Amino acid sequence: MDAVHVTISYHENFRETVLNFEAWNRWFEQYPNLIMKGLWAEDVDRARATDRTAIFFGFQNPSPIEDDIGLVEIVHSLGARFMQLSYNNQSLLATGCYETEDPGITRMGRQVIKEMNRVGLVVDMSHSADRSTIEAAEISQRPIAITHANTYDWQPALRNKRHDVIKAVTAAGGMLGFSLYPYHLRDKTDCTLQSFCEMIAHAADLYGLEHLGIGSDLCQDQPDSIVEWMRIGRWSKEIDYGEGSSSSPGFPPMPCWFESNRDFRNISKGLHATGMSETEVNCIMGDNWYRFYRDNFVPFAG
Amino acid sequence: MDAVHVTISYHENFRETVLNFEAWNRWFEQYPNLIMKGLWAEDVDRARATDRTAIFFGFQNPSPIEDDIGLVEIVHSLGARFMQLSYNNQSLLATGCYETEDPGITRMGRQVIKEMNRVGLVVDMSHSADRSTIEAAEISQRPIAITHANTYDWQPALRNKRHDVIKAVTAAGGMLGFSLYPYHLRDKTDCTLQSFCEMIAHAADLYGLEHLGIGSDLCQDQPDSIVEWMRIGRWSKEIDYGEGSSSSPGFPPMPCWFESNRDFRNISKGLHATGMSETEVNCIMGDNWYRFYRDNFVPFAG
Repeated sequence: MDAVHVTISYHENFRETVLNFEAWNRWFEQYPNLIMKGLWAEDVDRARATDRTAIFFGFQNPSPIEDDIGLVEIVHSLGARFMQLSYNNQSLLATGCYETEDPGITRMGRQVIKEMNRVGLVVDMSHSADRSTIEAAEISQRPIAITHANTYDWQPALRNKRHDVIKAVTAAGGMLGFSLYPYHLRDKTDCTLQSFCEMIAHAADLYGLEHLGIGSDLCQDQPDSIVEWMRIGRWSKEIDYGEGSSSSPGFPPMPCWFESNRDFRNISKGLHATGMSETEVNCIMGDNWYRFYRDNFVPFAG
Repeated sequence: MDAVHVTISYHENFRETVLNFEAWNRWFEQYPNLIMKGLWAEDVDRARATDRTAIFFGFQNPSPIEDDIGLVEIVHSLGARFMQLSYNNQSLLATGCYETEDPGITRMGRQVIKEMNRVGLVVDMSHSADRSTIEAAEISQRPIAITHANTYDWQPALRNKRHDVIKAVTAAGGMLGFSLYPYHLRDKTDCTLQSFCEMIAHAADLYGLEHLGIGSDLCQDQPDSIVEWMRIGRWSKEIDYGEGSSSSPGFPPMPCWFESNRDFRNISKGLHATGMSETEVNCIMGDNWYRFYRDNFVPFAG
């Protein structure tokens, strides 16, 4: 792996997110031969050339900017490159996919999208509801991303995306990263590699292969307490099982062909088996994200 | 004045709100013969008996509880007695009256209302949009308040409240406090005392006199920078004039019969002139709020 997009905020506020940047800074200091901080597309090249992995940072919630538009530029300076406008619930900016209703992008949301565009912080709508996502694609002057989700037509999970939503994002130059989270897969843990890769090939026909990548949603070696933090943060006194249930509250077992970060090669093989060329497979496995990073992490040229 | 409801948060987060409590603690320490902290209805009696003013605290935004439901009980312990579920914009809990759309109370909002009911923190919907307000009245197990607004039928300002909204709040035992903010008054600064008091008398006919009080919205001796903080906080890089405009950005002049906190007696006189009895005038001028304080600041009896 030349590059990984790591989540460093689910519900953390600004100060808590800075603590997470600090923790990663210690790891970069301790393991300089394995990992390096990723800020720009060129860092992927540098990681590859030095046999390391570049770590790019993203937020799955706008909680790190709190109610302060000035923090958009600050978190970009610290190294944030993706920010979801909402996690599962309503945020100050947009609506999460677990809310009953979705009124679209809020007043503050419109201001923040503009500021994210300016500084080069990518709008990520992975956990947002449909209308908010479509409006974000329309309002944003730069391409946006759904970094981790699959097609709803293939697996009708709450978090997977309907045709109109993917169309709005990709038609505006945006990216869809395919998820390996079992609840997002057809037959969940039992999903076959072939079915997953055929879903991707079908999406390439519908939306254009250049708009597709991988967004594994991998939660490797994390305890269930992390999943609970994702789901309920501090907003509820009651447990909320998300896509799980009281009988299976934790992270479900991964499919046998993608048990860990060592298994990306299986996906490459599966994509080849659908009839894709070497170049096409490489585009999906990283080259599309590389180009997207190159175009969208830098300040707006206007 | 025996008691005043003071706003100590518009956009402040928890820590900043604590700084505002600290500032008031210093004033209570420095001026013990003038003011005292108000926590319970009995403190109004104590203030009256000792010729002081009891200061009760409220938030015009849920920003002090951030995204943390555990902070509801903490802010009540510190002395907060009212919390708006939103200011003018979408919050994590409800929708503000300046948003284009109002999807109602959010997932977190439902949890927080329940917790506010439990500890005795009153739900205030003064700046919220219509649907959110009606839903809050329905969801809350205790009466809620619109602490400062007038009737939309009398003066169709964005912040004044339509019949259905006031009906939902008062029918559930809630309170409406009438505002003296010139933008909420018919003819604004030129509003007559008679017109204001007739609006109140008409509301008494429609909603029941026992549900009405005063919520002056007085911003006496505050600089325009405070008004700017109310309006744009940190959420926008652009100026937003609220109910004002670029030609009159500040706080407009108060009507001649309510220029300051010394003029409450004029309102009493004006209410008498509408034909109300001494008892009825006293209810509106404070006794109704006193009863509401007594019933709603203590933890839920079940």
